[in-house]
Amino acid sequence: MTENISAEQAQREADLVETVVASFQNTPDARLRVVMESLTRHLHAFVRDVRLTESEWNEAIAFLTAAGAITDERRQEFILLSDVLGLSMQTVAVNNVAYGNATEATVFGPFFTQDAPLIENGGDLSGGAPGQPCWVEGSVSDTSGAPIAGARIEVWEADEDGLYDVQYADGRVAARAHLFSGDDGSFRFWGLTPTPYPIPDDGPVGRLLAATGRSPYRASHLHFMVTAPGSRTLVTHIFVSGDELLERDSVFGVKESLVVDFVEQSADTPTPDGRELTEPWTRTRFDIVLAPEA
Amino acid sequence: MTENISAEQAQREADLVETVVASFQNTPDARLRVVMESLTRHLHAFVRDVRLTESEWNEAIAFLTAAGAITDERRQEFILLSDVLGLSMQTVAVNNVAYGNATEATVFGPFFTQDAPLIENGGDLSGGAPGQPCWVEGSVSDTSGAPIAGARIEVWEADEDGLYDVQYADGRVAARAHLFSGDDGSFRFWGLTPTPYPIPDDGPVGRLLAATGRSPYRASHLHFMVTAPGSRTLVTHIFVSGDELLERDSVFGVKESLVVDFVEQSADTPTPDGRELTEPWTRTRFDIVLAPEA
Ligand SMILES: [Cu+2]
Ligand SMILES: [Fe+3]
Ligand SMILES: [Fe+3]
Repeated sequence: MTENISAEQAQREADLVETVVASFQNTPDARLRVVMESLTRHLHAFVRDVRLTESEWNEAIAFLTAAGAITDERRQEFILLSDVLGLSMQTVAVNNVAYGNATEATVFGPFFTQDAPLIENGGDLSGGAPGQPCWVEGSVSDTSGAPIAGARIEVWEADEDGLYDVQYADGRVAARAHLFSGDDGSFRFWGLTPTPYPIPDDGPVGRLLAATGRSPYRASHLHFMVTAPGSRTLVTHIFVSGDELLERDSVFGVKESLVVDFVEQSADTPTPDGRELTEPWTRTRFDIVLAPEA
Repeated sequence: MTENISAEQAQREADLVETVVASFQNTPDARLRVVMESLTRHLHAFVRDVRLTESEWNEAIAFLTAAGAITDERRQEFILLSDVLGLSMQTVAVNNVAYGNATEATVFGPFFTQDAPLIENGGDLSGGAPGQPCWVEGSVSDTSGAPIAGARIEVWEADEDGLYDVQYADGRVAARAHLFSGDDGSFRFWGLTPTPYPIPDDGPVGRLLAATGRSPYRASHLHFMVTAPGSRTLVTHIFVSGDELLERDSVFGVKESLVVDFVEQSADTPTPDGRELTEPWTRTRFDIVLAPEA
């Protein structure tokens, strides 16, 4: 919209940008200088492009102030803001560049914990969390197809009520575990069929989503973090094909390559490990390819 | 720096930007949609251009969190952040477009108060604030040169210790007043010779200034807000020619057209109004031109 202003006005605005950029020229840390210069140019371009009004500037200050006020050790509104603007996902993309057929990364999210229990390959991570049983199997390999034995696989997910264990006040540890891939790189475990859940939407970020006609819901997913010596650490999810939220995941974590089938099984279908189930269950497969360490 | 990435990687990043932009397509308020789309594009361009690392992203979140934590009714770190990035000044520039020879605007700052005392044209606004006496005279006119009688002129400034009255705990009202231009558009008053002062620099914004080798000081200035029916309200400062801080005002408020001479006078120089002074004083002139109301 800057095309409607006079040449003199445009010059004043452009001169100001250069003055601000120049103010960073004595930054001792070269990287910090580059970051601040770029941030300055893009934020000024935003203000100029939209011809930000003074009342909109006031609203922006009030928004950030409200985000600060609701943030504490348990609630992080600035991360939510980064998430819903897709900036968390863009940072993931920039730091996990495409490498051959390596599995794509997605957002880490706030619900990972250290010290999740170790389960056997083939064990059950539910820990009593409510939800439909889901058999997950797959393999870990490098980009040449060679299996990676002993890869550490962390898995965590919400229960059928859309809550992670850490969101309960009772200190439970459930629906999370770690296991290791076998000698042939394969892994398998019982988890829960993923269900959708909203990001916290009772603060300024939730109000922004409402004002822009967006849903706070995340598409149903199961979190993975896979580490192996010599390989780039992979933080990712698998998503459920057919989930209507795939197109409007509130934090833009969905990648087509991460959407897999969770195939419904009737209660009387024999399970892979002979477990007896009295209700329907699902099964899925996720083959993981790790890029080499940078 | 995006030129060093593969075409596939660039496509992934560009696709993400479009996905986020598209998420705002159902925003009921057309203006909010435009603002959010532009903000999204510029912030993503920043992340991509600098190849923001995950640890830098964490630092950014920690910075905003610290800014939120220090902000309360008396301290506004997000405004300070906007100020030191020049975004407050750019917003002023965008909203006060160049108009003929109209006086340029600058930042409002946090120290204006409603209900400053009324003084006579020719009165003294110091209210006992410590500082060197300064005679200020000038005129208010429109862009055709016609004088504007009865313009309301608000003036406020720091004392010689660099503090505004509201920064003292004793409730004093000093170094601020309002007066009205005379029938010929002229005004005159006794104030204080402006002195420099730092913006609050004991929080994250101060640490940013230190890390980038920048000073928290503002160039010495005297604030004006001038209102008259049919004219665009002018919020501005005058600055002191020769002030070494003019080149590095921490909030980028300086405009060349607002730098005026404060001429030193010896104690025995007769004053314009016959006032007896025993110490040196200064005098200056500021002719104000108001743009018509938009
Ligand atoms: Cu930009
Ligand atoms: Fe999650
Ligand atoms: Fe000031």
